[in-house]
Amino acid sequence: MNFRMIAYIIGKLLKVEAGLLLLPMPIALIYGDDTIPDFALTILLLLAVGVPLSWRCPKNRGMYVREGFFIVGTSWLLLSFFGALPFIFSGEIPRLADAFFETASGFTTTGASILTDVEAMCNSMLFWRSFTHWVGGMGVLVFMLAILPQTDAQTLYIMKAEVPGPTCGKLVSKVRQTALILYAIYLVMTVVLILLLVLGGMPLFDSALHAFGTAGTGGFGIKATSVGYYNSAYLDGVIGVFMILFGTNFNLYYLVLLTGGLSAALKSEELRWYLGIIAASVGMITLNILPQYGGDLLHSFRYAFFQVSSIITTTGYTTADYSLWPVFSQTILVLIMFVGAMAGSTGGGIKVSRVAILFKDAVRGIRTILSPRSVRSLKFEGKPLERQTLEGIHCFFTAYMLVFVFSVLILSLDQYDHVSNVTAVASCFNNIGPALGVCGPMGSYAPFSDLSKWVLSFDMLAGRLELFPLLMLFSPATYRRH
Amino acid sequence: MNFRMIAYIIGKLLKVEAGLLLLPMPIALIYGDDTIPDFALTILLLLAVGVPLSWRCPKNRGMYVREGFFIVGTSWLLLSFFGALPFIFSGEIPRLADAFFETASGFTTTGASILTDVEAMCNSMLFWRSFTHWVGGMGVLVFMLAILPQTDAQTLYIMKAEVPGPTCGKLVSKVRQTALILYAIYLVMTVVLILLLVLGGMPLFDSALHAFGTAGTGGFGIKATSVGYYNSAYLDGVIGVFMILFGTNFNLYYLVLLTGGLSAALKSEELRWYLGIIAASVGMITLNILPQYGGDLLHSFRYAFFQVSSIITTTGYTTADYSLWPVFSQTILVLIMFVGAMAGSTGGGIKVSRVAILFKDAVRGIRTILSPRSVRSLKFEGKPLERQTLEGIHCFFTAYMLVFVFSVLILSLDQYDHVSNVTAVASCFNNIGPALGVCGPMGSYAPFSDLSKWVLSFDMLAGRLELFPLLMLFSPATYRRH
Repeated sequence: MNFRMIAYIIGKLLKVEAGLLLLPMPIALIYGDDTIPDFALTILLLLAVGVPLSWRCPKNRGMYVREGFFIVGTSWLLLSFFGALPFIFSGEIPRLADAFFETASGFTTTGASILTDVEAMCNSMLFWRSFTHWVGGMGVLVFMLAILPQTDAQTLYIMKAEVPGPTCGKLVSKVRQTALILYAIYLVMTVVLILLLVLGGMPLFDSALHAFGTAGTGGFGIKATSVGYYNSAYLDGVIGVFMILFGTNFNLYYLVLLTGGLSAALKSEELRWYLGIIAASVGMITLNILPQYGGDLLHSFRYAFFQVSSIITTTGYTTADYSLWPVFSQTILVLIMFVGAMAGSTGGGIKVSRVAILFKDAVRGIRTILSPRSVRSLKFEGKPLERQTLEGIHCFFTAYMLVFVFSVLILSLDQYDHVSNVTAVASCFNNIGPALGVCGPMGSYAPFSDLSKWVLSFDMLAGRLELFPLLMLFSPATYRRH
Repeated sequence: MNFRMIAYIIGKLLKVEAGLLLLPMPIALIYGDDTIPDFALTILLLLAVGVPLSWRCPKNRGMYVREGFFIVGTSWLLLSFFGALPFIFSGEIPRLADAFFETASGFTTTGASILTDVEAMCNSMLFWRSFTHWVGGMGVLVFMLAILPQTDAQTLYIMKAEVPGPTCGKLVSKVRQTALILYAIYLVMTVVLILLLVLGGMPLFDSALHAFGTAGTGGFGIKATSVGYYNSAYLDGVIGVFMILFGTNFNLYYLVLLTGGLSAALKSEELRWYLGIIAASVGMITLNILPQYGGDLLHSFRYAFFQVSSIITTTGYTTADYSLWPVFSQTILVLIMFVGAMAGSTGGGIKVSRVAILFKDAVRGIRTILSPRSVRSLKFEGKPLERQTLEGIHCFFTAYMLVFVFSVLILSLDQYDHVSNVTAVASCFNNIGPALGVCGPMGSYAPFSDLSKWVLSFDMLAGRLELFPLLMLFSPATYRRH
């Protein structure tokens, strides 16, 4: 591996994080927080590491998939580590395992929190915490791609490792330009969301932070009862719709911009699966929770829609304590935790396209077994699926299940109940945030042991980076000389 | 489809079930049960349907995979239905949903019970209940194959649908002869087990019934506390070892008989995975439950070994209430529920070979993604795996997960807790028996609704028949004219 080039790029990324840490400082000034030295110290440390690493561009700039994966994995680990320092320095989250968990949760846009009283945190720290969602949202590295000068050949590999989902479609032709376009869409949508929230009566600071969490499909709340605090049907509706929008494949927005019409985007098979699953889930939950909301259909629908939107897009905001809902509704929520959002969105999870392809492949497989003479080819988005893509998805699914199972096993050492263990892993691995049991919508990840927190942090990173970059970092073969 | 031939064979199978129902009658005589008319009536009904169906062998005896699957699926449904009638007629299990559940649980060698007080059941019914395990054990149809005259070409397809696991290896060359050999091995092992149990002081009746349950890896107990009732380290050890023996691929016994030595069998990669998983699970659980047994290592080992053996072989006997064990131990037990026994054994579950292949394929996939230029072929049992086999396993795994997820969703309508729902499906689908929560080792499936009981019955049959025959029966395409 070309470790010089890896170090060079990671150095640059650390310098960018140093730049990002300048933003909470004016917030600290406005709200009179004494956290400026904490941010400043972190910036100095980042520069102390980042500047020497990126001092001179190496002559050999060759990079392959391995290097790309290595950069992605390492940089998310390092950005989470350095991003955790302000929390430690300020004493807001004094312990490393906790602060790392919280920051990894931010950058991976998970939104799982070890805070037991989020309202006690000062505003500048709340800002940094939510801002990591926004940075993480489109993927720190896609974001970086738009800023750092890179050649197409090199960045393609990083892109491949970074853009969530099985394909990056038409986006890879001109990576830097594309990244800029995606970034512009992301920025505009965030600004529109902030405006809509402010119009609905939410304070500007709260609006910005909730928009960060929505755009990144992160879900860090700043109130103990999350979005439920504002108790406004309008705000629930706006955030609910925008979560779905940010969980949509950004390729489709690009397509709408190119063609100037919605028709091409609406032909997307993945979009139809995505909206179909949302509609079915909202419908079933609305009816199931109806008695609990006194038979008020609108009320039921409002809470069901928000929660389904929040969970399937892997955001994790809550407006109701769904752990009090009937078990059937809870089961649906847990199932859509695994489905996740569309590929190429800011959401996590297995991804709608993968689930749809696995489903169609299973149906085809059954048919083939029952009448072996008729060979059927599997189509997705109207095109036959290449064998390699399908094998990749199967491999992903198996690896996914293995990581899931081993994580649950380690968590079970903590002696919490099965539901807490399983849903905590499901929630972190799929980058959602709240789970059931100990870490339910009104709970926190604080009670878990440090070992469990590290495992969950690993899961958040592995889930966000589509498994392989993280698995690679922990595989001995990576460090063996070839 | 050749429905005439299907009807002919099913008719023959029903006549065989009528014959099997003669066996509980002497038991009823010995113990003075007044159940003889109930068995006699069932026999008459079976003959009334079976005799006309199998009156004359059709001219067109051609059968393909579709016919084979159809026969397997339908016959297990019908055998379970007719097998349930004595319970209903005698009033021991008056409701159809319950009686069908119990009998399907027997024939599928699951061992899940809706009885809340098993000790209240009369001996002849207990005998029939446990005997269904023994009949189901090697697969009713492999069993039938040894009796019914069939040509090789036809039976091959039934064999393929029947023998659990991804391959039936060297067994298919002369099906009838092979079935006879397997049947002989099965019979001899059962007789040896009965003798060993009687030697350990267990009454003959109890020994026979426990041997039936062990041989079929079924697990119907005849005491409220299952095997724990006898509280004997010797009996625990004998049953524990025999469960593992019946969970072993019968091909290996055949191989040992052919070669006269163990060495060939010990080379089996699946066997090594199987024993490895058992050893690791027993080791971890022994240490984990040690404090609960006052630090007594032998005691811990005894209970851990029995429970691991019982669960991984999908038998389901219990000697301890493992729902009181630490969550870590429970999690291991739930995980090995899914692994199941070896392919070609009487056990259920996903099967050790499939799990091993999925694991190896995931590792290979990760390696291929990290260094795409090196193409690696996947080997199992020392031979490269065909692409079709691997695709079949992936398809099985996905279909398995889909059935699992939909079953849990329907069960969740019952308002029991998540752990009960998930483990009930896991236990029935993998043909184990006891689960956690409501239907834990000391509980029963009685509280579930009829809908849930039908779903769980479907899961037991689908799990036992490796999914596809049952899915076929419920697929509209099966009944469409081609």
